Amino acid sequence: MNIRTIDWKNNKVRIIDQTKLPHKLVYLNIDKLKDLYWAIKIMQVRGAPALGAAASLGVYLGVKDYPGKDWKGFARKLKQTAQYVASSRPTARNLFWGIERACAAALKNKNKPVSKIKQAILVEAKKIMREDMASCRRIGYYGAKLLRNNNTVMTICNAGILATIDYGTALGVIYRAKEQGKKIKVFSCETRPLLQGARLSAWELHKQGIDVTIIADNTAASLMRQGKIDMVITGADRIASNGDSANKIGTLNLAILCKYHKIPFYVAAPKSTFDLNIKSGRDIAIEMRDSNEVSTIMHKRPAAAKGAKVLNPAFDVTGHELISGIITDKGLIRAPYKKNIAGILGK
Amino acid sequence: MNIRTIDWKNNKVRIIDQTKLPHKLVYLNIDKLKDLYWAIKIMQVRGAPALGAAASLGVYLGVKDYPGKDWKGFARKLKQTAQYVASSRPTARNLFWGIERACAAALKNKNKPVSKIKQAILVEAKKIMREDMASCRRIGYYGAKLLRNNNTVMTICNAGILATIDYGTALGVIYRAKEQGKKIKVFSCETRPLLQGARLSAWELHKQGIDVTIIADNTAASLMRQGKIDMVITGADRIASNGDSANKIGTLNLAILCKYHKIPFYVAAPKSTFDLNIKSGRDIAIEMRDSNEVSTIMHKRPAAAKGAKVLNPAFDVTGHELISGIITDKGLIRAPYKKNIAGILGK
Repeated sequence: MNIRTIDWKNNKVRIIDQTKLPHKLVYLNIDKLKDLYWAIKIMQVRGAPALGAAASLGVYLGVKDYPGKDWKGFARKLKQTAQYVASSRPTARNLFWGIERACAAALKNKNKPVSKIKQAILVEAKKIMREDMASCRRIGYYGAKLLRNNNTVMTICNAGILATIDYGTALGVIYRAKEQGKKIKVFSCETRPLLQGARLSAWELHKQGIDVTIIADNTAASLMRQGKIDMVITGADRIASNGDSANKIGTLNLAILCKYHKIPFYVAAPKSTFDLNIKSGRDIAIEMRDSNEVSTIMHKRPAAAKGAKVLNPAFDVTGHELISGIITDKGLIRAPYKKNIAGILGK
Repeated sequence: MNIRTIDWKNNKVRIIDQTKLPHKLVYLNIDKLKDLYWAIKIMQVRGAPALGAAASLGVYLGVKDYPGKDWKGFARKLKQTAQYVASSRPTARNLFWGIERACAAALKNKNKPVSKIKQAILVEAKKIMREDMASCRRIGYYGAKLLRNNNTVMTICNAGILATIDYGTALGVIYRAKEQGKKIKVFSCETRPLLQGARLSAWELHKQGIDVTIIADNTAASLMRQGKIDMVITGADRIASNGDSANKIGTLNLAILCKYHKIPFYVAAPKSTFDLNIKSGRDIAIEMRDSNEVSTIMHKRPAAAKGAKVLNPAFDVTGHELISGIITDKGLIRAPYKKNIAGILGK
């Protein structure tokens, strides 16, 4: 694709500032961990797979200027850095996986000079990015088989180029179908409160030549009832070993509406989004974000009555019983999820 | 209540400008039909029952300065006026009912001098307002029986004081429960695109001392899944003779989510919202509104990617099979709806 969400360029982390989209395509060049931490926190970079890369690069930024020469001191710094990066956002599994990969690369090289250990972390972060590019394309390959010419897909939030390195998970499926010559129409739920569907998915889909229509999230049921939707495909932030999937708030709404209307509901995510250490969605921590995101519009004009309370969970959990299949880089996984996830993704 | 949404004062229609809420409580004094037409169109006044009153007052504004003295000429002017008012918004049944009542009052007095006919229309419009105040209180009476102390209710859009003359339908049920000493908590879906839930319902509920929390519409399923919602109550814009109910876009979403979670879903509306001439929701015209309402936020800051299309239906239709009961001013109507609506509301 012609857009790259996150990269390592000139000894800096280069990201697209997604809070500026769709108005301006602005790149940020970050060389301090604290700046990357805040870029994650305020969602200048977001999307589970992109957060995996950002987290591993963050670990590198955090330790690269460590002046000590011994492993013990470096390991302390590494642990501290890892904890700091991990505290940026709680839900996306990939963020923790990116940190773990960076730390494992360090540990594997613990007997080498500290400068080599640092290098190993950076090499691992770059490898994560390369792997993501390949794994999104595999998700696209498996997912596109589900789509027929002239299908209409509904999606929520952004699980596209801007949520990964350069291709997308849920939207990667659509890009792959397009490469195969299939004509796919997309309804993009605007995705309140932060409007990733209206701002990000609509932006990149339009840029890639896909017929995309933005709707208020409230319009989903009406379109389904009119028979206008063939399939819903969403991304995921963390998937439990039984298939329960956390994703942007509103995803559960769509999954239930699909069940009611007998429309297939698919989740698209790489292996790195799975958390095989947890049994079910009940074990997934849900990030609560600032009430300002709801009571104002994109941090500007206030839109809500003063005095009223606001509740702003960033994610919900879709039970596996509502999911028609999980499109992974290792293949399409269908129910029974516990058995098939272990079979396809387990060691 | 201490707020009056629409009134006849000093020979003018006085309305609260609801586009200014929750920031400012501004009253508009309107004495030209064209101004009232636009107030309806851009939703300075909205809500099915309030539109019934506005429409009848609009008919009066349209004919009050007619200079002719004979019924035939007056009747032509009346018909023209009625058609103009009717073209303001297509979905709410009450708007047409208000026009019909005004015209019927004129017809009943056709043998009187034109000045008397005009007076009869104004008297009828005032009667519509008085009736609405009484009928909202009856809806509150029947609906409050469904609520128990410490119940939590979810609602969408605004079916409150601001949608009626002064008490509300869905929110009137909550006000009545409060008068009975019951403690009721409300989750108000913000209601994209025009945020009536965040701006209007939260404003008036907070003003009336009700514990209200605003949520993005996307949060509904998550709260239901966590067992936090005891009941959903919404208003209606038009109800067919089989119970199918048109209401603000997103209502169908909530009804399906309720069905899935086995949560009671109630519609609250006066008799004047029923259209017994139509068989089902398929016969209800759904207003399509300007894409700007979705692609900008409250007509200000653009929020959507350029080039993407936007679809903005203002209403959806909830099938009667999803409705636990319709709370009317004539009593609670349950399934089988066709039979019971005819029995309770038919002539």
